[in-house]
Amino acid sequence: MDLAQANHAAVERMMTARPLLKGVATARDVIPGMRDGLILHAGPPIEWGRMSGPLRGAVIGALLFEGLAEDESDATGLIERGEIEFAPCHHHQTVGPMAGVTSASMAVYVVENVTHGNLAFSNLNEGYGKVLRYGAYSPEVLEKLGWMNSVMAPVLADALAASAELDLRALLAEALHMGDEGHNRNKAGSLLFLKLLAPHVARVASSDVAEEVLKFLGDNALSVLNPVMAACKAMADAGHGVEGSTIVTAMARNGTDFGIRVSGLGGDWFTAPAQVPDGLYFSGFSSEDANADIGDSTITETAGIGGFAMAAAPAIVTFVSGTPKDAVNTTMEMYEITETDHLHFTIPALDFRGTPTGIDLRKVVELGITPRINTGIAHRDAGIGQVGAGLVRPPMEVFEAALIAYAERYGV
Amino acid sequence: MDLAQANHAAVERMMTARPLLKGVATARDVIPGMRDGLILHAGPPIEWGRMSGPLRGAVIGALLFEGLAEDESDATGLIERGEIEFAPCHHHQTVGPMAGVTSASMAVYVVENVTHGNLAFSNLNEGYGKVLRYGAYSPEVLEKLGWMNSVMAPVLADALAASAELDLRALLAEALHMGDEGHNRNKAGSLLFLKLLAPHVARVASSDVAEEVLKFLGDNALSVLNPVMAACKAMADAGHGVEGSTIVTAMARNGTDFGIRVSGLGGDWFTAPAQVPDGLYFSGFSSEDANADIGDSTITETAGIGGFAMAAAPAIVTFVSGTPKDAVNTTMEMYEITETDHLHFTIPALDFRGTPTGIDLRKVVELGITPRINTGIAHRDAGIGQVGAGLVRPPMEVFEAALIAYAERYGV
Repeated sequence: MDLAQANHAAVERMMTARPLLKGVATARDVIPGMRDGLILHAGPPIEWGRMSGPLRGAVIGALLFEGLAEDESDATGLIERGEIEFAPCHHHQTVGPMAGVTSASMAVYVVENVTHGNLAFSNLNEGYGKVLRYGAYSPEVLEKLGWMNSVMAPVLADALAASAELDLRALLAEALHMGDEGHNRNKAGSLLFLKLLAPHVARVASSDVAEEVLKFLGDNALSVLNPVMAACKAMADAGHGVEGSTIVTAMARNGTDFGIRVSGLGGDWFTAPAQVPDGLYFSGFSSEDANADIGDSTITETAGIGGFAMAAAPAIVTFVSGTPKDAVNTTMEMYEITETDHLHFTIPALDFRGTPTGIDLRKVVELGITPRINTGIAHRDAGIGQVGAGLVRPPMEVFEAALIAYAERYGV
Repeated sequence: MDLAQANHAAVERMMTARPLLKGVATARDVIPGMRDGLILHAGPPIEWGRMSGPLRGAVIGALLFEGLAEDESDATGLIERGEIEFAPCHHHQTVGPMAGVTSASMAVYVVENVTHGNLAFSNLNEGYGKVLRYGAYSPEVLEKLGWMNSVMAPVLADALAASAELDLRALLAEALHMGDEGHNRNKAGSLLFLKLLAPHVARVASSDVAEEVLKFLGDNALSVLNPVMAACKAMADAGHGVEGSTIVTAMARNGTDFGIRVSGLGGDWFTAPAQVPDGLYFSGFSSEDANADIGDSTITETAGIGGFAMAAAPAIVTFVSGTPKDAVNTTMEMYEITETDHLHFTIPALDFRGTPTGIDLRKVVELGITPRINTGIAHRDAGIGQVGAGLVRPPMEVFEAALIAYAERYGV
């Protein structure tokens, strides 16, 4: 199989993957290799000493949530004594937005790509305000997580068990026709998600709990982000491991480093320092407050949506800056560095053209065009939360390093 | 007040109207002048002898639903003996999609324009398939109507009583950023409606009924059409009755005639034969099956959305025919014949320009450009239902006749 065939095969596998949301379960029961004392985090591997503020905050919060520590210094002590292990979510078929911190007791969505049989997982979305994924770990953050885990998660599990298959690819395809791009704007997708779950939630929960759960899901325009990310992970993983392919199958940031993986280059990460996104800041904040780019949510762009589908979501510019024309231009630019147009994700305003799908390492380096990523911006200090939203590009070095590794491995 | 001032005032009133969904109640209890034996219908006034198939079918269905007749011939007998009165919905602050038939026992949405204090009403949306609004009156149609009236309506009434104000103008503004145009495409608006109601439905209904109601609302991408129409009626009525204004404040079709009313011309209707829409037909049907244009839903275009906002809804072309570029062109053409850009309804893809709002009779006649209307297409025979969807223009004669009446009345 030559390079062109390999890339075609990898992207074909990504696009024919059909991720269904199969359920909600506890991480330790379903995520391969998950265990007490292991903390999964967003992005490529990183040790405690190099973690940024929001990631550290989320780790501390997870240790408090698990009951492994009683306070911050207790948590830090555990970590410094080496009693806590860290691993990227990506090493465990998992993805999480922002800090992405996932621990053994947390409820996670279970997504299965029924075309190729692989699974992917993601934690539950906490909504807005002070949340663990932005590094907050105050009592109200942990209380909300507790409610999500012990009240909402069992209801979602029962509701999903009672419902017909929840096809996340179909949901995304519809959401892209409703002004979403699937990463930073998931308004329509979250409402479609609510629509599919609501009758079952009403059936399986008491009226008090059903009311709370429907309000929580409905008020959170990012409710579906996490299952969407797991769906993108399941699609991207389906394209991973094709011998000779230069297609990027993961992009992820841990708040310090930006890393990519490539279909034909096994499990290796190619990393470089993550950049600060360029965007709109919430009132009272500026780029001086911003942490470097963080989160596994770039799996959406890897799978052909998010920043790559911005032309479908002109209203997003009120949130990330720029004009509707810029949104179209962003998508048009991404056609330059991708393998093909998506079979299922189409953009009405571009005459229903498929989204640009399958980032080709070679094209990125040859054309000098890095992927465009839509993202939230975290405060650099733990516990403050989101300070804005915008666009960011990965550092070119990661693609250059991967291309060199490719040349060495394949002798071209 | 000169003509320019009058038109400015009329459209300003339309745009500053703020329609809230206040409740669900029985027509005879809330619609002014509603009584047993009175059947409201879409469009301008029409007698039984000139009614088209779908309108006749819906009238028969309403008489069966009310228990006034036992079968079709019984119903026809009543009508022919003059025991049933007919009046346009519009004469009773009401609007209804397609046949628009509304009788005394039916549940209706109650909308109040809290800026100017006027009320408007609309019946509940039945969803797809065999439905009264397309002239079907078989037992399953009446059974569904019965369930809607006796089971769903009380739940919606209680849910609305329990919820904060449901601002339909805000809902529409958001839906236009999510790929709706508010007439033929109300996918996003219906989901936003579901989102706002769902927690309250779960609270006020038993779990069985909550499940049924949430499924019914969620499965119907037109759920919000009827409250949206009542909201548009409330907005358009706010602009009616401005002395000297040439702004159109109602466009409506009864399946035989197309009629308009004008702000400065009192209660007069200007009518001409309705045309057959041009569009896409469902499998097995063609334009030979089509009834002439029918329904009060053109109140949406009158208020500045629907066909006028098509540029916000490029995906609609899969349903009504044409290309996304045609959708943009339709909106651009409507700026030619309208007074201004809407203050609240904006189109992201046009750099958030307000929708073209306030059809000016003079511009229509001077430029020879009639309004563009998005619409469903009914089968010409009663009881078959929807056979397609497309675009239609009103006959130019109605605008010419209105302009002559204006000239006579105002001596210009």
